Amino acid sequence: MERSVEPVTLINPFEVPANADEDFIARWEKARDFLREQPGYVETRLHRSLRPDARFRFVNIALWDSPQAFQQAMAQPQFREGSAMPYPANPALYAVVRR
Amino acid sequence: MERSVEPVTLINPFEVPANADEDFIARWEKARDFLREQPGYVETRLHRSLRPDARFRFVNIALWDSPQAFQQAMAQPQFREGSAMPYPANPALYAVVRR
Repeated sequence: MERSVEPVTLINPFEVPANADEDFIARWEKARDFLREQPGYVETRLHRSLRPDARFRFVNIALWDSPQAFQQAMAQPQFREGSAMPYPANPALYAVVRR
Repeated sequence: MERSVEPVTLINPFEVPANADEDFIARWEKARDFLREQPGYVETRLHRSLRPDARFRFVNIALWDSPQAFQQAMAQPQFREGSAMPYPANPALYAVVRR
């Protein structure tokens, strides 16, 4: 499999209602524990908004070696079955275009 | 002014229609050029989605020394007048809570 010259960035903003922080984090940690064992995983950081009323209460920002590595990890049956997330998510892969 | 122990993260997902990339980037660069001269600015990275049909075509991720520094930069009349952005944005400040 070809690898990108530099990692791709997964950005995933989540809409999580008030009082659901603990439930969300528990589910996110379970998904993270699986994903970080997959080929091509580099790192991840879960961000929580300073204000509790932000539209996107949590945003996950992760690095993967390539789009293919991320897609393959997402496609694992073990992940799909174990990571049901009842909160609206907007995952997409990104590249840095300006600094 | 007190400073946070570590920087805060601004995450700003933008909805930008097809064929508006150039216009968006030109406006974003103008805003960046102003903001990076302001007290408390650390760095910024503009991310563009690999797929052109992502809900959020661009996501800006910046670091600021403190929430106060960011709010003060946003409140500058020169910024408010010069940075009209016709694309829906969702800016909020975040802290890293899990890795």
